[in-house]
Formats: sequence, structure tokens, C-alpha cells
Amino acid sequence: MNKIILDGKLVAKNITETLKERVSILKTKGITPCLATILVGDDPSSETYVKMKGNACERIGIKSLRIHLPKETETADLLKTIEELNQDETVHGILLQHPVPSHIDERKAFESIDIRKDVDGVTSTGYGQTAFGFGKYPSCTPAAIMEIIKFYHLPIDGKHAVVVGRSPILGKPVSALLLNENATVTTCHSHTANLPEIVKQADILVAAVGKPNFIQGDWIKKGAVVLDAGYNKGNIGDVDYEACYENASAITPVPGGVGPVTISMLLKHTVDAAELV
Amino acid sequence: MNKIILDGKLVAKNITETLKERVSILKTKGITPCLATILVGDDPSSETYVKMKGNACERIGIKSLRIHLPKETETADLLKTIEELNQDETVHGILLQHPVPSHIDERKAFESIDIRKDVDGVTSTGYGQTAFGFGKYPSCTPAAIMEIIKFYHLPIDGKHAVVVGRSPILGKPVSALLLNENATVTTCHSHTANLPEIVKQADILVAAVGKPNFIQGDWIKKGAVVLDAGYNKGNIGDVDYEACYENASAITPVPGGVGPVTISMLLKHTVDAAELV
Repeated sequence: MNKIILDGKLVAKNITETLKERVSILKTKGITPCLATILVGDDPSSETYVKMKGNACERIGIKSLRIHLPKETETADLLKTIEELNQDETVHGILLQHPVPSHIDERKAFESIDIRKDVDGVTSTGYGQTAFGFGKYPSCTPAAIMEIIKFYHLPIDGKHAVVVGRSPILGKPVSALLLNENATVTTCHSHTANLPEIVKQADILVAAVGKPNFIQGDWIKKGAVVLDAGYNKGNIGDVDYEACYENASAITPVPGGVGPVTISMLLKHTVDAAELV
Repeated sequence: MNKIILDGKLVAKNITETLKERVSILKTKGITPCLATILVGDDPSSETYVKMKGNACERIGIKSLRIHLPKETETADLLKTIEELNQDETVHGILLQHPVPSHIDERKAFESIDIRKDVDGVTSTGYGQTAFGFGKYPSCTPAAIMEIIKFYHLPIDGKHAVVVGRSPILGKPVSALLLNENATVTTCHSHTANLPEIVKQADILVAAVGKPNFIQGDWIKKGAVVLDAGYNKGNIGDVDYEACYENASAITPVPGGVGPVTISMLLKHTVDAAELV
């Protein structure tokens, strides 16, 4: 069997190359695309993620406005910061880094992001628009998964896609996007009975469960496409790669799979938003 | 096997009884719940549906404001009508009867309904909120299906639900509601390969496909709960009832199943909206 290692770095590179050109054109019109990132508290992984995103912006000419709020920040203060960014015409995208400290109403904060600046795809309105087929900025990891599938011309129409996970930024939107592309979609989660049996039916498997090496090799149907959206400590995916590699026809590694494309989708959405101003 | 015929009329009666009390209390406070229905054109079935809904309102003391626009109505005119209803403080719910004439941008019209008055659950924002678990007014047929399941105390958690259909007002929201109740959910549609095989896995089957007698008896797993949301010409459901009755542990008839509960959910949402004023 001709096996494909789905190279996220290659997909990301292709996306960011075209973005550089689009940023240049915007700048000739006096517009510098700008992504505001909000980090609340001092979780080291969150700090790293926000830094990575900011640096990725700057590498292609997007302005990165980095806001760091103390961990004692109250919901009301965070809402005020978001509202200021909503009003700020020089800001095109707003990313609130998840998770915020537990005393903050994260959902309320997400929902307060102006839909026109919700480039990270966290609002319920953005999700609804995505599910109904006219969303501008689907959540970035689901968007990345779709980009990888399309880059490699892997068929979706009529295929059985199994998504393991149902979070608002991953399992739910990727299920919606696959359904919009005419996959039959099964969404699984912690209450699913006989998970291995269901995964075994997948022509396309998306692992979005947040447990290292959770998906086992003998759960994979011969010829399946395996997309691992997991990012667990020590750069370990949700898929037991070595074991799942065997039956898969195409598979994303971790790192170097979905991750790099996710960041490039964030950049793409920010440029899209700047072009719409 | 103890077989249950899921009696939609009984479920609906239980809901409307409590609504009558709530309407009375609202009236003592000077508030008369009001549902505005908009019918565009002269499709006879649509006229019948709108009339049924209006009459059902009036039977329990909800004011029915019936707006009938000519079939030549342009999108802009329809949007103006909706905006007036959005602004009208005496109107608590707005229902635009589907389908509108084909020259009208129906999606744009739906989206223009104020989320606080979207008691029929047609906006993408309403759908997104429902999928994220905090929607006030899910689309009425999906809400009805959930009411029937809960009225009969049929288990959902950990069950495999198969939804046949993916429309924005039926297949998608009922999939979301079942997922929120911890079912494993498979959404099928016209591009699904091996539909009988997938339906055969269903502990809970929702037929929302719009084809008379489409679901066959030998597709039904022994003991499955079968919910028929179909309403085809001649009062025929999407499920071949006689044949599917055999293996089902519980099944909705057509008529007298999901239909009556759908209308009672519309009334409930309108009363909910009036109470929130």
C-alpha cells in the first residue's frame, strides 16, 4: 500500500507563502493585519503557545499585539479588554488563549469577541455559521485538518469519518466541517460504548481527545486516514503512531502534523479579516 | 418485549397544560405572550401549517399575530417586516414559515430574526448556542424529539444515536442535542454509503430525511427507539411504521408522534421568551 505521511510543515509552508504576498499588498494600501492575543495568568504552556503564535505572525508581516493580564484578572476586566479590542480598528483578529484561570467565565469572554474578529473560531455564532456552511473563520485546528485533507486530495465525500472528542473548538467543529463535505460523521467521546468498534469503521479518523497514545493500532481499519489533533505533554499525540501507522493509508505525525497547519490557519484568518475591512 | 408507542399527543398535552398556567400568570402582570408568524406566498401546505400554529397559540391564550405577504415579496421587504417585529416590544417570538418563494434569500431572512425572538430556532447563532449547550430555543422538531425521549425516560447516555438527515432545522440540531446528552451520534444523509448497515447500529434512530416510508424494517436493530420526524404528503412518515414496529422497543406513529410535540415546543418557547421580557 502506498502510504502517505501527512506533512503538516509542508502544508503550512504553502499557506504562509501565499499569505506573505497578501500581507504585502495590504501594506501597500496602508493596512497592517494585526492579531491581538490575550494571555491571562502565567501557565507556562499557554505562555509558550501565545509566544509561538505571535512570532508566527511577525514572521509573515502580521502585527502581533500581545496583551498579558495578571492571573487575578476578573471576568469584567477581561470583558473590558476584549471590548476595547473589538472597538480598535487597527486590530483585525482577537485570540483569547485557552484556558483562562478557573475563576473567570471563559465562555462569556469568548462570546464577547466580535464575530468579525473571531479568527480563532471560538464563539457559538462562529460555530453555528461554520456548521451551516457560511462561517468565515472556523476554529483553527479543525480548519487545519480540512486543509491537510484537501492538500493531499484525500476523498471525503461519502466516507465515514469518526471524530473522537467533542470540544467546542475541536470535536464539534471538525465534525461539522466533515459533514459539510459530505462525510457520514460519527462523534465519539468519553461516554461512547465500544469505542474501538466504532473507530474501526472510520475511513477518516480524527483524534481530538487529549490523551497521549489513546488510539490503538488494532482499532484502525486498513486504509484509513488518521489525523491526530492531540498535543499532549512531551509532544505526544492522541494516536499511538507506530502502531496505527501499520493499517493507515495516510497519517499525521506529532509533532509536524496538524500543529503547524493550525497556526497557519490562524494567520490566514487574520489576513482574511484584514482584507475585509 | 414491552413495546411502547410513543404518544406525541399525550406529551404535547402535558406541555400545553403547564403553559396555560404560565400564560395566565403572565396576563396578570399585563403581558400577553405573542407569536408573530410570517407566511410569504400561497403554498397550501404552508398556509395550513401557519394556521395550525396560530390556532394552537390562541387555544392556550398566546396572541397570534399573522402576517401574510404576497408571493412577489422581495428579500428587502421581508427583512423590513422582520425588523419591525424585532423592534415591536409586544411580539415575543417570530416564526418565518419555511419555505419562502425561491427568489427570496431565506437564509438572510432567518438570520435577521433577533436571537431573543428566535423561538423557532432557525438562526445560526441559535444553533451554535444549542450545540454549545446553552441555547434557549432549539429548533422545535429536535426539541420535540428530546421531550418525547425524556417523557418516556428512555436512556440516551452512552447510546448510539443515528440521525438520518442533516438539515439546519432538524438533522443538525437533533444531532447536537443528542450529543449534549452523551449519546454517540452518527449523522447520515444522501451521500452516506451503506445506510442500512449504519442504521442497524442505532440504539436511537431519528428519521429526518423527508422521504415517505424510507426507513425499512430490516434496518432496525432489535430494541431500538425509533423517532420519525418525517411529514410527507398524506400524513406518511419517513419510517415504514408497520415494518419497523417489529424490532423497535419504542416508536413514534405518524401522525400523532413528533408533530404535535413540535407545535407545543413552539408555544413553550414563545412563553419562555415572554417570561424573559
